[in-house]
Amino acid sequence: MEIIFKPIGVVHSPFKNEQDIPQKKFRGPGAFDKIKGELEIFSEFKAGLKDIEGFSYLILIFNFHKSERGKLFAHPPLDNQQRGVFATRSPNRPNAIGMTIVKLLGKKDNILQVAGIDVIENTPILDIKPYTNRDQKPDATFGWLDKNRGLTPIFGV
Amino acid sequence: MEIIFKPIGVVHSPFKNEQDIPQKKFRGPGAFDKIKGELEIFSEFKAGLKDIEGFSYLILIFNFHKSERGKLFAHPPLDNQQRGVFATRSPNRPNAIGMTIVKLLGKKDNILQVAGIDVIENTPILDIKPYTNRDQKPDATFGWLDKNRGLTPIFGV
Repeated sequence: MEIIFKPIGVVHSPFKNEQDIPQKKFRGPGAFDKIKGELEIFSEFKAGLKDIEGFSYLILIFNFHKSERGKLFAHPPLDNQQRGVFATRSPNRPNAIGMTIVKLLGKKDNILQVAGIDVIENTPILDIKPYTNRDQKPDATFGWLDKNRGLTPIFGV
Repeated sequence: MEIIFKPIGVVHSPFKNEQDIPQKKFRGPGAFDKIKGELEIFSEFKAGLKDIEGFSYLILIFNFHKSERGKLFAHPPLDNQQRGVFATRSPNRPNAIGMTIVKLLGKKDNILQVAGIDVIENTPILDIKPYTNRDQKPDATFGWLDKNRGLTPIFGV
């Protein structure tokens, strides 16, 4: 069974490739909060952006287009051992789907200006959804990440 | 450009089809919190579940396998008008990707026991990721949903 998707847009990011996101620099909490970028939605999907203003955060679902597929383990940069891939946000996973939450700063025609960008230039966008109260889990605990509290998991985690 | 994914598992849900999720019954905040189900991960991907215990919430990314593709507007059940699809969580969207956050109750072999299930039986699972501190946005505002505060957006929103 194959499930086929097509990009609805692309990300414009100050990070041109993975090496532009130095792990050490972007470890603090909120490290990406000030990283601005744009979500360019292809014109045929532009009408679907109606009413998006007013949501302060958006769920960005994208394709890890530079990743290796099929890996079941990842060695997170914050950690000293291999972890099961589904306990990480590693780009190298069975389905190359990424998810990150960005702050919506503005909208101009088919472009969304956002902050909190932790993906690279030309990342294909698969979907955009509003972040809602059901996505807020203030009581969450974070497994192996808990011992690294204060560090920020980025896509490599 | 086509992006091809294959399911890594399936959801087992008390909701056998969409009609089993009556909109009126499941409108209150936390309405789905007690709905239990299982995420069955296919055996070839089971090793990737290592270390997942300890994360209290998981991000479940799935395929809306019963939805209509390509719609740019949705009429949310909580609302009195059509909204741009990217300002809703409607299953009927250009790429049939769903995202919901579930509470991890336990793990037995290749089965994750979870609560907070708002999807139907046999929903194909595309990915599972840990919910981390970067996914907590306590300052979020919710656009057109704000006037319906207290109501719970479900997949139909």
